[in-house]
Amino acid sequence: MQETRLNTARIRAARRLIDPVFLDTPLYRCEALEPVLGCAVSIKLETANPVRSFKGRGTEVVANLLADNVGSVGSVGSVGSAGSAGNAETANNAAKGPQSVVCASAGNLGQALAWSGRGRGLDVTVVASRFATAAKLDRIRALDATLELVDGDHEMARERAAAIARHDGMRLVEDSLDIETCEGAATIGLELVDTAPSFDTVLIALGGGALATGVGHVMKALAPEVEVVCVQPQGAPAMTLSWHSRRIVTTDSTDTIADGVAGRYPIPAVLDDLLVVADDAVLVQEASIITGMRMLLEHAGLVVEPSAALGIAAILEDRGRFAGRHVVTIVCGGNVDMDAYHRWVGR
Amino acid sequence: MQETRLNTARIRAARRLIDPVFLDTPLYRCEALEPVLGCAVSIKLETANPVRSFKGRGTEVVANLLADNVGSVGSVGSVGSAGSAGNAETANNAAKGPQSVVCASAGNLGQALAWSGRGRGLDVTVVASRFATAAKLDRIRALDATLELVDGDHEMARERAAAIARHDGMRLVEDSLDIETCEGAATIGLELVDTAPSFDTVLIALGGGALATGVGHVMKALAPEVEVVCVQPQGAPAMTLSWHSRRIVTTDSTDTIADGVAGRYPIPAVLDDLLVVADDAVLVQEASIITGMRMLLEHAGLVVEPSAALGIAAILEDRGRFAGRHVVTIVCGGNVDMDAYHRWVGR
Repeated sequence: MQETRLNTARIRAARRLIDPVFLDTPLYRCEALEPVLGCAVSIKLETANPVRSFKGRGTEVVANLLADNVGSVGSVGSVGSAGSAGNAETANNAAKGPQSVVCASAGNLGQALAWSGRGRGLDVTVVASRFATAAKLDRIRALDATLELVDGDHEMARERAAAIARHDGMRLVEDSLDIETCEGAATIGLELVDTAPSFDTVLIALGGGALATGVGHVMKALAPEVEVVCVQPQGAPAMTLSWHSRRIVTTDSTDTIADGVAGRYPIPAVLDDLLVVADDAVLVQEASIITGMRMLLEHAGLVVEPSAALGIAAILEDRGRFAGRHVVTIVCGGNVDMDAYHRWVGR
Repeated sequence: MQETRLNTARIRAARRLIDPVFLDTPLYRCEALEPVLGCAVSIKLETANPVRSFKGRGTEVVANLLADNVGSVGSVGSVGSAGSAGNAETANNAAKGPQSVVCASAGNLGQALAWSGRGRGLDVTVVASRFATAAKLDRIRALDATLELVDGDHEMARERAAAIARHDGMRLVEDSLDIETCEGAATIGLELVDTAPSFDTVLIALGGGALATGVGHVMKALAPEVEVVCVQPQGAPAMTLSWHSRRIVTTDSTDTIADGVAGRYPIPAVLDDLLVVADDAVLVQEASIITGMRMLLEHAGLVVEPSAALGIAAILEDRGRFAGRHVVTIVCGGNVDMDAYHRWVGR
């Protein structure tokens, strides 16, 4: 395959840095969904862990490197290889003063970084939109992180986090750009490949691209026969439009309940990787996302956030394409405001 | 420890007979529950698998032995050791005619036996109360099992299943009495013991007793410092009353939404084991079960059936007892009728 920024050996090494609570997540057929969807459906469940999303895989890698490199300052991507020893040395950090790190987040990355950082004595600051999901912000606060809200969307939070990093000399963690966030997500791909029986297609929520490029890289490297399909909401289509036009396309706004994937400014290096590993990128309507959430509740007993229903939404909108195939959908997060959730699913 | 019918080496051997989709289930701290409960709470999640309950662990052991012993007729407990080779020989079965097996079930055992039997060419008949949870009965039918309903409760279903076995020469699988059902459930205990950090108490839903005696045996054998607390509804207290009086106590009726644990006639051999492995058995009110279900939904994003909320209910009713301790609760099943579920949790 054509090269990407990712490397399968580094992804395998990253696995060893991740708390096992985030690894080897459930992967199982959900036959109750299949009569409606018309294809075999397996679920890769990333919500049954302390932060209720897959983001812990990446933040564990990031935080391990930071805890190992408390003396230097720079971007996370440069601080060391993913294969370096992964023992968090809290006592060592304390002696040098706590390492400080900042990220922008729609909520799940921030929660995960707060969790990973807390266990390693890192000072974590999260910048988020004040319109972000309240349940996510509450958990970030509960995990002892500093939370700063901006009066704008996720792209404004990204700008603010970068400014804080520059001004205060903190490390900036940039989702999807920092390779460790992609490598952490990519460990899901290793688990998919290692588990029989094989499947035909993997459906991946597409936001910044860490999940899609990470899992996609592993698929193309180790199971190239599996179709990699990325799914994004029509209301936040920047990366999908970019993939189809093979150049960066930005949008002026987003309009989707899928808060976890609602970016406007795709990162060029991530698009380059996505062009290598994705077989397709599709857009789905809000109504399909909501139907997908409702189906996962009623037929699978899963409470998921909108981004985690994108795969089911893609099947609903193109049943013919997937008919008779075996599809894996990554249920990537379950952090929702319960009032909004019940409004969406109609209960 | 005093002897039980269980044996740790056989439980380890049973693990090798179980489809990995049922093993190594998530075990994680759920801090969002902790402010209300006043103790550290970890969840052992048994709902993220093809049958949405822990029962698949036991039926995999049962079905493996049946598929290996298609020539003989007798009780499951006598057909072989759990250490025998576990390869399902469907072709072999077909040559001798399919093996037939019958069980009584409130729904989860039947669904799990149907799943395990389908993959091994077994003819599965499930006898259930016509008042059983409709979602469970639907899944049993969908898994190609024969479903027979009785116009009475679970104890009548047990009688009818035994009669069918006698009349038709089918094998009878008896939950909690057949040692394989206990050994399968006991593999949860191995996973709890193998995972650091250690905890103080494990809360186990108590019905027929397979789960409680299985997990309890492993705890007392390998981690005797862990307190084993069984939890049953006040509306179905037979086994708990039996445990406290050290002799079988039956009841005339049950009155609980926790359908999975609503028995009236405890099995003497199971009580004997429970007397060895349980440190306590407590009864909880329906209102606490419902609050527990609601808390697991709102704070953990988990849709659980009433039996799976018994542990949380026990904490709610005796916060002082568990204050400051680290408690593991086994979330043992998630099969609910959604209309009833939403009525219970108030959404």
